[in-house]
Amino acid sequence: MDEEKNINRTTVSIYGQQYTIKGESPSEHVKVVSEYVDSKMREIKKKNPYLDTTKLAVLTALNTADEYITLREKLKEDESNKRDGER
Amino acid sequence: MDEEKNINRTTVSIYGQQYTIKGESPSEHVKVVSEYVDSKMREIKKKNPYLDTTKLAVLTALNTADEYITLREKLKEDESNKRDGER
Repeated sequence: MDEEKNINRTTVSIYGQQYTIKGESPSEHVKVVSEYVDSKMREIKKKNPYLDTTKLAVLTALNTADEYITLREKLKEDESNKRDGER
Repeated sequence: MDEEKNINRTTVSIYGQQYTIKGESPSEHVKVVSEYVDSKMREIKKKNPYLDTTKLAVLTALNTADEYITLREKLKEDESNKRDGER
């Protein structure tokens, strides 16, 4: 931890490669996020054994962005339905 | 579109590379997701100009997974607060 700015450094392993992540998030959270990405990469690799690592990582990012955007859209919809119900 | 199983094929460009995404999601959604990943890669590259493309893609996946997991946790918390409020 950096004493000046409360910055945590967390070293994680993703697909066999070490990354040191700096930021304000607690190490525990960084580890959960990293394990999510690592396991998603391995899952996609299993289905597409001939992918190189760059494409694999891009597909992992796409897959995760899909889940994020889908959840975000669902939330917006729920909120707008709630507002309609309150009228 | 595949006539048998309602599978859409959408070709997108991410960080200068073409990807054909197959799946049941509408092309419009695949494009939104792809633009999100493409712009996030460019944003991270600006801050870290010496990253190779694989690491850049992994960091993009991490960044997106962080947003997804943070939103998912917030949702869980909201739901548990709502349940507590109903007691």
